[in-house]
Amino acid sequence: MLAGKGRKAVQYELYYWPTIQGRGEFVRLALEEAGASYVDVARESGGESAMMRLLKDERIEHPPFAPPFLKAGDLFIGQTATILAFLGERHGLAPADTAGRLWAEQLQLTIMDFLQEIHDTHHPIASGLYYEDQREAARRRAADFLKFRAPKFMGYFERVLARNAVGKPHLIGADLTYPDLSLFQIVAGLRYVFPKSMARLEKHCPRVVAVHDHVAQRPRIAAYLSSSRRIPFNNEGIFRHYQELDLTQQSN
Amino acid sequence: MLAGKGRKAVQYELYYWPTIQGRGEFVRLALEEAGASYVDVARESGGESAMMRLLKDERIEHPPFAPPFLKAGDLFIGQTATILAFLGERHGLAPADTAGRLWAEQLQLTIMDFLQEIHDTHHPIASGLYYEDQREAARRRAADFLKFRAPKFMGYFERVLARNAVGKPHLIGADLTYPDLSLFQIVAGLRYVFPKSMARLEKHCPRVVAVHDHVAQRPRIAAYLSSSRRIPFNNEGIFRHYQELDLTQQSN
Repeated sequence: MLAGKGRKAVQYELYYWPTIQGRGEFVRLALEEAGASYVDVARESGGESAMMRLLKDERIEHPPFAPPFLKAGDLFIGQTATILAFLGERHGLAPADTAGRLWAEQLQLTIMDFLQEIHDTHHPIASGLYYEDQREAARRRAADFLKFRAPKFMGYFERVLARNAVGKPHLIGADLTYPDLSLFQIVAGLRYVFPKSMARLEKHCPRVVAVHDHVAQRPRIAAYLSSSRRIPFNNEGIFRHYQELDLTQQSN
Repeated sequence: MLAGKGRKAVQYELYYWPTIQGRGEFVRLALEEAGASYVDVARESGGESAMMRLLKDERIEHPPFAPPFLKAGDLFIGQTATILAFLGERHGLAPADTAGRLWAEQLQLTIMDFLQEIHDTHHPIASGLYYEDQREAARRRAADFLKFRAPKFMGYFERVLARNAVGKPHLIGADLTYPDLSLFQIVAGLRYVFPKSMARLEKHCPRVVAVHDHVAQRPRIAAYLSSSRRIPFNNEGIFRHYQELDLTQQSN
């Protein structure tokens, strides 16, 4: 949550692009579920310039490669999955034992791989080019993604959930962990990007959908999603809706 | 090292495609530097079938999404970066303090992002298609990679090394850590993939090259590299050499 009256001192500063959900959203969801006090720096007045200055600041001992990064006291932490492992451990959103912690990290990295492939459906050639300049390649990549890759990733998480007899609708054990929050975001994003294809895909992944629904109803997440802190999906981020890419898959 | 006469009991089983370096090589390098006893299962007789059976085995509580994965006692660990964090901590190839450990994980994930982009230069549309079926897209993606992305990543690691006054030629502190081993592999791989472009790029990244050279001379790594355990680079893995992709960058 943004710091406000009556809240304890700000614990965290999140640095991410101010107009998109992108990778930063995976961190925001963890901060919100934890009830942590944070400032979403680049969304504050002058904040984006501050972020760019920090990225170039020669005095930072551990410079991040790119946003998002998190300032936690003296620590600067970059890479979404690393930030989440850190927050998860600190705020009870990760298993306490080593095997569980490694499993959470592994699942999160697979979610990040999935996210990268979602991004690449609309930008298969270069992030620095407009979509319109790589539309034909995007059409081919999106078709392959929808036919092979999305079912493979979604089927994987469905299997993981099926094997967790203890705690459905959770990926790990009996409690919510940070990969659950990220899987929620993947489902929400895919519904925006590929509404028709996703509707078909979800029929085969009821457990994944159940994780999404459960997370959406967590009180802090529900409050967050209905607040102005949740940036709406738009066509500038990782999750973009181009109707022609959703239509490349004709089969049922 | 492969288990042999006079060696202690096998500690680890590595599962990865038997004919390529790929992501598995990053794990092999850590195992070799640690002097750990391991079996490279898929390279043994019948091992690849055993790997495929494990990937589908319903009894595995924490199923990996894809190779590489490591069996360590009762633990099954997938995702290269997670395996390396685990091995790094166990074998003194990672910083012992939290800030250092997070920094190593962050650097490793950035190396993995770099690796994915190297892969995508020859397969920008689909991993399941032949290179020849995506050659034109590959030409565009490789040109963008060589012009923008490779210099950005290499420049980043050069800056990180410049800021580590304590321990050149190391990314972190005074000692070798697992991201150094991975950065070695990136340099070795890029020299194979883009020999001409890489020769130009290295002029701007002397510290990165120094890490490569230092790692190559570590006694255990040097022994490994000259052994039959090191699979030669070839055009089936992540690092592939297609001359026409190296020639897309004309400027000096």
